[in-house]
Amino acid sequence: MPQTPRSYDPRSFEQLTYHDRLSAFDDGSDTPRAYLERCLEVIAEREPVVQAFAALNEEGAREAADASGERWKAGKPLSLIDGMPIGVKDLLETRDMPTQMGCEAYRGNFPKRDNAMVSALREAGAVILGKTVTAELGGSHPGPTTNPFDPACTPGGSSSGTGAAVGAHMVPCGVGSQVGGSIIRPASYCANVALKPTQGALNRGERQGTSMSTHGFQAGSIEDMWRASIAVARRAGGDRGHFALSGPDTAPAARQPARLIVLETEGWAETDQATRDAFTKLMERLSAAGVTLLTRRDCPPVEVLEQAIADARDICNAITAWENRWAHRNLVDQSPDGPSTRLKEGLAKAEEMTADDYHALLARRAAAQAIHARVGPMADGAILLSAPGPAPLWPGDRPGEPLAPRPTGSPVCNFGTSMLFAPAATVPMMGVGGMPVGVQIMGLPGEDAAATAMARWLLESVDPVVA
Amino acid sequence: MPQTPRSYDPRSFEQLTYHDRLSAFDDGSDTPRAYLERCLEVIAEREPVVQAFAALNEEGAREAADASGERWKAGKPLSLIDGMPIGVKDLLETRDMPTQMGCEAYRGNFPKRDNAMVSALREAGAVILGKTVTAELGGSHPGPTTNPFDPACTPGGSSSGTGAAVGAHMVPCGVGSQVGGSIIRPASYCANVALKPTQGALNRGERQGTSMSTHGFQAGSIEDMWRASIAVARRAGGDRGHFALSGPDTAPAARQPARLIVLETEGWAETDQATRDAFTKLMERLSAAGVTLLTRRDCPPVEVLEQAIADARDICNAITAWENRWAHRNLVDQSPDGPSTRLKEGLAKAEEMTADDYHALLARRAAAQAIHARVGPMADGAILLSAPGPAPLWPGDRPGEPLAPRPTGSPVCNFGTSMLFAPAATVPMMGVGGMPVGVQIMGLPGEDAAATAMARWLLESVDPVVA
Repeated sequence: MPQTPRSYDPRSFEQLTYHDRLSAFDDGSDTPRAYLERCLEVIAEREPVVQAFAALNEEGAREAADASGERWKAGKPLSLIDGMPIGVKDLLETRDMPTQMGCEAYRGNFPKRDNAMVSALREAGAVILGKTVTAELGGSHPGPTTNPFDPACTPGGSSSGTGAAVGAHMVPCGVGSQVGGSIIRPASYCANVALKPTQGALNRGERQGTSMSTHGFQAGSIEDMWRASIAVARRAGGDRGHFALSGPDTAPAARQPARLIVLETEGWAETDQATRDAFTKLMERLSAAGVTLLTRRDCPPVEVLEQAIADARDICNAITAWENRWAHRNLVDQSPDGPSTRLKEGLAKAEEMTADDYHALLARRAAAQAIHARVGPMADGAILLSAPGPAPLWPGDRPGEPLAPRPTGSPVCNFGTSMLFAPAATVPMMGVGGMPVGVQIMGLPGEDAAATAMARWLLESVDPVVA
Repeated sequence: MPQTPRSYDPRSFEQLTYHDRLSAFDDGSDTPRAYLERCLEVIAEREPVVQAFAALNEEGAREAADASGERWKAGKPLSLIDGMPIGVKDLLETRDMPTQMGCEAYRGNFPKRDNAMVSALREAGAVILGKTVTAELGGSHPGPTTNPFDPACTPGGSSSGTGAAVGAHMVPCGVGSQVGGSIIRPASYCANVALKPTQGALNRGERQGTSMSTHGFQAGSIEDMWRASIAVARRAGGDRGHFALSGPDTAPAARQPARLIVLETEGWAETDQATRDAFTKLMERLSAAGVTLLTRRDCPPVEVLEQAIADARDICNAITAWENRWAHRNLVDQSPDGPSTRLKEGLAKAEEMTADDYHALLARRAAAQAIHARVGPMADGAILLSAPGPAPLWPGDRPGEPLAPRPTGSPVCNFGTSMLFAPAATVPMMGVGGMPVGVQIMGLPGEDAAATAMARWLLESVDPVVA
């Protein structure tokens, strides 16, 4: 892959894939161990700059890859992702690596337990290669990871390491988690595909702390993304009380939508002109392909939906701050110097809230969902930017200066899908200034497979835009 | 209180109360510290047999009670439960006492954090006196606690220590948690009142592990039960994504229902004849008082509701087993000898389930809730037994013999309310063979205050039954 900074071109960039090696495993011309070694070579080459991993378990991965190779040789793989090297966001517990969550207060934390998703991945034969860097506790305080397409830029967050590791061809697939775009945004910045599933559709295991967080996969291909998602859903189910992601064992066939809602969201106001132009051009290509587009200007119900999510950022952030309040207070009390100033500032705001402030936010969220339930079926799905532009520069915090508000880039395009509990599949459809920018297809809750099928169609059938 | 075994009489037994001391705190004729010392005297006398506490923090409690006394003296109490001594079930984390969860694998566990409910109780000025014994991890493997009305009997479970401590006058109020009757059942066996709130209505904090568990209070009086519940709801809110319990600061006024649905549940088939007779006599008293009773025999929609919850026990147990599966697997892997054989047998069953087995159970639960939403409004609430009889004898497990299936008594009367996410308030309305038995009022989800008001009317206006 090209390593010249800012040279990304969506027309020529090739992602790393795994699914297309299975026939080679069958006929013996390739093995999961050889695949893993190729990943390790890329890591050895690029990790000093990219810094995607908080921990690596090369020895354990080699053992797991060898065991997988035996299964493929015997014609008895455990699943279609048997042998797939996977990076796991360092918020999820793993029995063989520490879980430090990007937070000084958790330095050395090593609970030796597997999160339900990690457990399911192992059951499916996947190779848990390493823990990927997360912004502190899944928030906004960044780790050391850099963007694989320009080390001066953020890889996005909070699933920073997963985004960068997949974008840098270190692994074909990785686990992220999202409230404010923590899966979709780094995927957009790092030229990955990703699925933020319907709220509750993939079991978060012990991490069921907030009402809008989801676990999901970033990958180099729709096929690997889907196969990993469904393999986990079959084995670990959804969150408590939720139906799991459902659909076929392999990715749904590409499907051209007849109609799409085009959502601006709060993000449009923050979107740079080059990205606006690129998105507008992409919409023209969809129209030319025969897709009817419904926008806030020509379709009043779409305007109602836009208005329902117009304050999604503030609503989501306040809901999540309240929900994290007790855990963060205990953390600060136990380890006053452990959490960042960014986290403590957020906690102070949360502790000013009342239960009725929270109830009011829940009521607004419920209203937005009711509107989506009525407006959504007017089209096959909605299309929107995955981020308001390419990855911004991130020079690091400067001592004595105010903290940068968005060191991992802006999550602004993603609070709508969180608030609506809706599935969102992002695909890298644009290059802006030599850097990737994604667009996402949002479905109604439960329509993860349909959103994936339409995202696949975009990726396979629509010419990407270079601006 | 009487300590002759099996001499409970609901017509004469007086519960321990706190709310009626507040005026004495105001005029200086009593103090929270003096109240606490009276509790400690009872504990010193009865704890050797009752064994309600897993840990006590007498020194910390005395400090907290003195601080509360200063606030009352200054006319500035933090809430109506300021100074109230409270026992907290040993599943909830407390920063000043260990949290050992009745499980050998957690012996010495001391995370020095406060659960959200504990944090809210401290904010309200309550005195966290001790950790009360829980059956292992809130399951069925019992601790050492005995029934305060007959030490040969179980106090019920899993909130065994809270039930016994309140019933024995050691504390006026205590925290429990429930899926299979773990609040309501010990309250029934120990002559307490209790509120199992609407699912999600009291913040479980870090303990949001299963979709049907709730936190709630047992107390000696409706007033203390309600004041503690609402004080916590105002400060810690509900579970993530849920509205909190709502209502007045003091207990809702007693309210005579015009109509009540009488539910047999699966419990009727297990109920002994003396308890059946007592319950039937109680229903006659309600009729005589002018309450219209709707039963499965005379009201077809009630029969539909009965059928919807007829398998509630199996459905709830299987849902909870699936939801605990990953945590229990990690526990057994990390500490093979720590969990009980009872827990391991449950885990083995859970690991035979598939995600689609779980989905099928969720669908049945949703159907039962839909039926309740339609049938419930036919009356002001439903009335049902809190347990299928008085506390059974519990001689302990015998080496070499099969494990007793229900060492903490039968939860059978309580799975319906869990499955329906409905609030349930129990009051001690019957004495059977010299032991207490409660009846509960169930409301529609969100109707906690109304259920409490009707339970209060029962307690205050209907003659209890002695059989």
